[in-house]
Amino acid sequence: MKFHTEYLWFHTEKRREYIRITDKVREVCQKSGIKEGMLLVSAMHISAGVFVNDNEAGILSDIDNMLESIAPLGPDYLHHHTGEDNGDAHLKSLLVHHQIIVPITAGDLDLGPWQQIFYAEFDGRRKKRLIIKVMGE
Amino acid sequence: MKFHTEYLWFHTEKRREYIRITDKVREVCQKSGIKEGMLLVSAMHISAGVFVNDNEAGILSDIDNMLESIAPLGPDYLHHHTGEDNGDAHLKSLLVHHQIIVPITAGDLDLGPWQQIFYAEFDGRRKKRLIIKVMGE
Amino acid sequence: MKFHTEYLWFHTEKRREYIRITDKVREVCQKSGIKEGMLLVSAMHISAGVFVNDNEAGILSDIDNMLESIAPLGPDYLHHHTGEDNGDAHLKSLLVHHQIIVPITAGDLDLGPWQQIFYAEFDGRRKKRLIIKVMGE
Repeated sequence: MKFHTEYLWFHTEKRREYIRITDKVREVCQKSGIKEGMLLVSAMHISAGVFVNDNEAGILSDIDNMLESIAPLGPDYLHHHTGEDNGDAHLKSLLVHHQIIVPITAGDLDLGPWQQIFYAEFDGRRKKRLIIKVMGE
Repeated sequence: MKFHTEYLWFHTEKRREYIRITDKVREVCQKSGIKEGMLLVSAMHISAGVFVNDNEAGILSDIDNMLESIAPLGPDYLHHHTGEDNGDAHLKSLLVHHQIIVPITAGDLDLGPWQQIFYAEFDGRRKKRLIIKVMGE
Repeated sequence: MKFHTEYLWFHTEKRREYIRITDKVREVCQKSGIKEGMLLVSAMHISAGVFVNDNEAGILSDIDNMLESIAPLGPDYLHHHTGEDNGDAHLKSLLVHHQIIVPITAGDLDLGPWQQIFYAEFDGRRKKRLIIKVMGE
């Protein structure tokens, strides 16, 4: 049984960004040498997420619009009484979930043709980290 | 260490359907011969989901109503500028999440008494695929 | 390859509670003796969830407020025609998801500095169960 762990760092220019990381995840998968198994991609912050969706600018904006309509930036969240201003980012992270599992079959990510992996930054402009852990044989 | 992978195909009559797949997942679990481990059930499309909930028609309609109220079918999503008409399905998939992990204990799915596994089709009337991967011993 | 499975029980006083379980999960991880692997934390009920967020009272209330605004307690959900009164709890569970995977590295939970694990009770005042399964070496 084999394990392989890597950490990716992000430092976005904008507060919110959706960054396609499928190729980086595939690289980590191939580097691991694991042919059959599961690969975890998990944000290590509570104001970021990881999701699978389409690599199409329109839908990424639609996702952002939906999240803003449910948990808008700005309002006086109770969390802000601590001096923070990112209550919306915590809620957005919860809604899209902070992690995915990618199955590995025959040494590659076993994804459908349109499935792309995204890192969702909801409170950027500072260093943030993500873990990729591969487990299998 | 053992692995077992199967793909299920769906071709629904309606645009949106919620299909109970617990029995099929259990079959795959038993076929794998794995007694201890984890089983991934993951939609391979970005307009479908997988979730665990109650096998009760009312709650399935309540889920559908909630998803329609957040991400209704029809509105001019930015994604539709590409010629697509399924922006709502992408958003619904994101909200319910596209995958679950089922623990396997003593050779069976280790679920609570009311936990049933559903494939959520949000843009059906065509062939769609789901992966089940079992990993353990 | 090693496996370790434990069940946690909850019996909350209030209908909805958000209970930090990071320390208990860490204990189970250490007890398992597993140094590299993955740990599943999964609610065994369809009216409860598991999520990772900040251990800060304000944001927990913000999460509760958001869930109440999307799926409020009380309205006549179709699910209530069965005699149940917890339709909101099913929907809240779906929104926050009922499970997480925690990576294990060097014998400990590999979480970011602010990541805390919560059991989310949406229909308490009775016994509810959660499974923790560790898999690795």
